Amino acid sequence: MRKWQSIWVTGAVSLALLLGACRQAQAPADTTQAPAPATADATSATTAPTATPGADPLPSWRDGKNKQDILAFVKAATTEGGPGFIPPEARVATFDNDGTLWAEQPIVQLQFVLQRVAELAKQKPELAKDPAVKAVLDQNLDFFRDKDGEKHLMKLLALTSTGLSPADFEAAVKAFFAEAKHPKLNVPYKQTTYKPMVELLQYLRANGFQTWILSGGGIDFMRPIAESFYGIPPQQVIGSTGEYDVKLQDGKLAINKAAKVALINDHEGKVAGILTHIGKVPVFAAGNERSAGDIAQLTYSQTSPYPSFQLMVNHDDGEREFAYDEKDGASLAAAKANNWHVVSIRDDWVEVYAGP
Amino acid sequence: MRKWQSIWVTGAVSLALLLGACRQAQAPADTTQAPAPATADATSATTAPTATPGADPLPSWRDGKNKQDILAFVKAATTEGGPGFIPPEARVATFDNDGTLWAEQPIVQLQFVLQRVAELAKQKPELAKDPAVKAVLDQNLDFFRDKDGEKHLMKLLALTSTGLSPADFEAAVKAFFAEAKHPKLNVPYKQTTYKPMVELLQYLRANGFQTWILSGGGIDFMRPIAESFYGIPPQQVIGSTGEYDVKLQDGKLAINKAAKVALINDHEGKVAGILTHIGKVPVFAAGNERSAGDIAQLTYSQTSPYPSFQLMVNHDDGEREFAYDEKDGASLAAAKANNWHVVSIRDDWVEVYAGP
Repeated sequence: MRKWQSIWVTGAVSLALLLGACRQAQAPADTTQAPAPATADATSATTAPTATPGADPLPSWRDGKNKQDILAFVKAATTEGGPGFIPPEARVATFDNDGTLWAEQPIVQLQFVLQRVAELAKQKPELAKDPAVKAVLDQNLDFFRDKDGEKHLMKLLALTSTGLSPADFEAAVKAFFAEAKHPKLNVPYKQTTYKPMVELLQYLRANGFQTWILSGGGIDFMRPIAESFYGIPPQQVIGSTGEYDVKLQDGKLAINKAAKVALINDHEGKVAGILTHIGKVPVFAAGNERSAGDIAQLTYSQTSPYPSFQLMVNHDDGEREFAYDEKDGASLAAAKANNWHVVSIRDDWVEVYAGP
Repeated sequence: MRKWQSIWVTGAVSLALLLGACRQAQAPADTTQAPAPATADATSATTAPTATPGADPLPSWRDGKNKQDILAFVKAATTEGGPGFIPPEARVATFDNDGTLWAEQPIVQLQFVLQRVAELAKQKPELAKDPAVKAVLDQNLDFFRDKDGEKHLMKLLALTSTGLSPADFEAAVKAFFAEAKHPKLNVPYKQTTYKPMVELLQYLRANGFQTWILSGGGIDFMRPIAESFYGIPPQQVIGSTGEYDVKLQDGKLAINKAAKVALINDHEGKVAGILTHIGKVPVFAAGNERSAGDIAQLTYSQTSPYPSFQLMVNHDDGEREFAYDEKDGASLAAAKANNWHVVSIRDDWVEVYAGP
């Protein structure tokens, strides 16, 4: 059995990117764009179209092969009797989150963890004796770059997310998103969602697709905001998951998040996430080209007996977003080998951010 | 952290019941009843009503407090502006399967495992050297009653469900249900689903509830038949879950069911299952009074900030179904203490089985 890599291998990669990419990349030229109407009812796979009939359902996408292929795929999928028809119950679409639905420089959940460490240290000053906590308080993120960095990050994760009830954790996540701003773009994180992808989610739902988040981030971190950010209800969020500690005693339930990891929803773990939560092969799968994390889910979607669509976002826009590449180029190589659609943020998107 | 009890503690209890109850209980007098139209589209939380307006949506339920309370709860939940209104996104209903949606004497999944053991032993006669396999082949189920019974049952589970691809396992499940008949009722298992409960599922969906199976049985065992038996799609099935072994190599995915248990979806584990798969507190929860397995989920649903409904099926009909009780009466005691609705199969149901 494959041993899932630790969440903090992902975390460490993310942190390295956070530390590195914000130095390399320029801030976007314009972050004050039109609001994204991300409020469609996604509890239904057959949500009625919200767009005006005949109107362009993907106005933030530049005309070109990628846009045309998306429109043609969806048209064929919904044309009964046609060769590309996909029955409604098989119209399952999975979307990675970080770098696919919103900007991932920096990783938002890592910002949340760092902030929670600081809050906890205020409540319990003795925590600052821990070198990892001290490093966060001193804003010395270089501390996490050495060989023990992962171990220290794991300690922080356990410190900030376990022993809380799911309801308390949800409240903490909501409080974070109510206040926090993207450090470079200086806007609330909701405004750093990608407008073209929010349009794509709505367009798919309007055509009977059930849209799912398939994030490497924590399931309990994404759920509280998935509906308002993307129109995706909590039960259609898949993410890295910890076990839950549930006790029933004298008729009362005590529920807490436990430290034990149940699923790292990244790389092959994303396929395990789909198997656990959906039990169907998605016919539409979207990811991005960082850390090879989406190759497995896109490969899996291509095993569907129905026509399928694979989309990989390429972060090639240093002006409006952040330009970065994988060292080994594995994701783009897999896209080329399998005829997946590579979406260029620079060339394919008229606007990048959902904005206010 | 609570250590989930082994699936085969449940299994052993089930087996004991299987061995015991079929001796005590009489076969139902009449199993050739009207068909259940269990084909509603449950991928949507807002499925249109299938019943004629004004018609009784629960014709297999005898008029009485339980039926009236169900009708009143749903009417209030859907009356906007009223004190019992529940917004559509919160209308989540969870149903245990064994003993709540279909007859559990014997446990159907145990029949499947025993049959698969026999098949495997045909393919590999050397397996019969294993005393547990030999006991199955000799129909010596007393073998599993001793103190090592659980250990032997675990071995059989590992033997019959691991190392297979999910697709192959699904095919095996479908093949089983295509052929197998209930040993006492002598009908296909689909006909042993409870007609009143299938009506209830349809009625809830017609009123904007999203219906979920929350079974102690295996998620991969329930999913292939949940849609045709109950109108519930695979992604709304929660069950006991094993880990999946996923490997991506040279662009190819190899996927197998692994022997490691991820969730025992029974007792407190049912709450963990809801947290993992739904992330919302159900407002309607249904279980039955065997082995105290549903007390936790019903307790949890009562913590909803919205009005909620708890239903516990009582197996008190030795004529038409099977009459059995918990030794300690824990489920009925919890129902009394918490004002849950106890449904008497004898008194509340006009008909019991969905039939052909």
